[in-house]
This record gives sequence, structure tokens and C-alpha cells, in this order.
Amino acid sequence: MIFGSPLLSRLVALFKKMPGVGEKSAQRMALFVLRSERAAIEEFAQALLAVKERVGLCEVCGNVAEDPRCVICTDPRRGDDAICVVEQPQDVYMLERTGAFRGRYQVLHGVLSPMDGVGPESLRLGNLRQRASQAGTREVVVATNPTVEGEATALYVSRLLEGLPLRVTRLARGLPVGGSIEFLDEATLGRAFEGRQDL
Amino acid sequence: MIFGSPLLSRLVALFKKMPGVGEKSAQRMALFVLRSERAAIEEFAQALLAVKERVGLCEVCGNVAEDPRCVICTDPRRGDDAICVVEQPQDVYMLERTGAFRGRYQVLHGVLSPMDGVGPESLRLGNLRQRASQAGTREVVVATNPTVEGEATALYVSRLLEGLPLRVTRLARGLPVGGSIEFLDEATLGRAFEGRQDL
Repeated sequence: MIFGSPLLSRLVALFKKMPGVGEKSAQRMALFVLRSERAAIEEFAQALLAVKERVGLCEVCGNVAEDPRCVICTDPRRGDDAICVVEQPQDVYMLERTGAFRGRYQVLHGVLSPMDGVGPESLRLGNLRQRASQAGTREVVVATNPTVEGEATALYVSRLLEGLPLRVTRLARGLPVGGSIEFLDEATLGRAFEGRQDL
Repeated sequence: MIFGSPLLSRLVALFKKMPGVGEKSAQRMALFVLRSERAAIEEFAQALLAVKERVGLCEVCGNVAEDPRCVICTDPRRGDDAICVVEQPQDVYMLERTGAFRGRYQVLHGVLSPMDGVGPESLRLGNLRQRASQAGTREVVVATNPTVEGEATALYVSRLLEGLPLRVTRLARGLPVGGSIEFLDEATLGRAFEGRQDL
């Protein structure tokens, strides 16, 4: 039992279930709770419950949403002319920060992992093919991660869309901005070379 | 606003207040909450409130306690013949795991940091001098961290106890078990040499 307190030990155990939280971090968080003002912890508990009760996934695209549809799917200035397929809600957030994309999304909440027996049924594909079949849709950008699983998923998505009159694209591979060629891995440098562009 | 949800954004902001939690970790934790079962989150919220309501600090030594006194101060098999002074409750937990110490503790909940203007008034010294003045007390082990602040605090504690008929000791500096001399810093190796012992 940690800290001679069953209650604190239980809180440490619960923090440890969170992604990326190990024993030491969980202990520090639990002691932070112990040190905090009661009002702050009540707010925290209330925020947890509010998220669980009032936040869900968009019925169209699978993005985070407080209503049946997310803020992007309900934004009248955006359309399904381009649909970007991502692995996780975090990826939507990152892409939105770039301002490079003004279409809508499909959030898969996972990737194919044949090695672990994770097949297409575990992906949240929604009505992707049907959405992409709409008259106005001209492009699907597959923005999965540049990993084995991400590539397998991208391939699956592109096959799912086969025969539709649209471009299926994926994000460029190349030099990270601000990076140094000296320290780059061979695979990335090779892709950057293959994908070289006119100056 | 993160994820297009004010509620999730608020939860991310609250997670970020925890020690060692950055933006990415906070986002992952908030999405973990979103994905979790409602019962699990209710348990978590309840565990937070229970810690806040029912766990505090031992009135004698400052260790974590669900009662006015902690499990170590109320353990009849332990006594004040030796008192170990530590910075944080985590240090009590680590020392207890070694099984090397059977006395009681004083948890300071901080260290002196003259550079940051943190003086003795911010340490939880309790009645340390009075406790150490008891007939049976023969040793005070100052187990602060081997840092500038920890050393300053150790010095302060030893002065506080000046004139009492007891040993004031501190933890040995030396080679970490399983470590390699080749990669050790000079200061530690120097201390290990100075403190060499007969084989």
C-alpha cells in the first residue's frame, strides 16, 4: 500500500491506467491532488463527469462533438469537397492548426494492425464511401501516420474508394521543417529525394 | 479551443496543471476519459473527492494519513529512537521499501531554496526539535536529496538540533548499486572514494 493510505493508493492505481502515466507520475499526481484546494478538485471531478456525460463522437465523421455532429461537420463554410481521413481526434486538431485544409474529416479511431489481428471492423469508417460518392467530393486525403500500420490503413482506405471519380492522396514524405539532413533516417531522406520538387 | 469541444478543452487545461503533464499528455488523458466507460470515470471522480475529503497529513510527522496520525506514527512496534527527515511523502515510501529503517519520520514538504527566497518558514518542521529531545531519541537521519537545496536544508536541520545529545547523520554518497564507474559523474565518484570502507 502506497503512502500508508488505501484511498491515496487507489487514486495512484487509477492515474496509472491513463495513457503514458507510470508509477512515479501517478504518485506525483495523487500527491498533487492531496495538496490542492478542495474547490479545485471538485472542479476537476465535475469536469471529468461533464466530459463523460456531454461529449461524444460526431455521428458523421467520428470527431469529438458535444452535439450529434461536430463543429466542423456543421460549419456551413466547409464542405465535403475534400475529406481527410485521420487516425485520431488529435490529428484533426493538429491539421486544423496548420490551416492547410478546409474540407471535412473522417476519424478512424485506430489503424489496421494485421500483426495484432486488428482488422477493418475495428476502424470507424462510417459512411466514408457513401460520403465520398457525393457529387461535390473531389479528393480524399489519407493522413494516417507514416508507420507500417498507417500505411496498411491508407492502402485499405484507397481500395475502399476504388472506382469513385476522385483523387485519393496522402501526405508528402520529406524533410521535417527545421530538421537537419545529417541526422535524418535513410527512409525519410530517400522519400524526400524521390519526391523532390522544382525550385 | 481543442477538439472543438469547450468541455474537453477545459479537462485538458485541468490535466495540464498536474505535475509533469504537458499539452500532449493532457490531450491523450482527456481523450482517454472520453473513451472510458462511464462507471470508470465515476469511480475516478469519486476517488479524487475521497482523497480530498478523507486524506490529510499526520499531525506529528507530516506524512500522508487518513487519521490524525499516520500508520507509522501509530505503529507500536516503531519508536522515536531514530527520526528520519525527508523532503516529500514519496521519500517515506521509497525508504520503507528498503526495509532499512525502523524509526519514524519528519516530512518537510519542501526544501530550503535561498536562491528562490524559500526560507525555513515554508518547511513543515513540526516539533522536530522537541521530538528529538525525548529521552529515547538517539539519532536523526537527514535524508534530503543530494542537491544544493537538499544540502542547505540538511545543514539547517542539523543546526536546529545543535546541543541535543544525539547523532545527526545523513545518507551515504557513493556508487549506485548496479552502476558503472565509467559513466559516473566526478562529484559522486569523489564522494565514493572519500567514503571508502574496509572490505
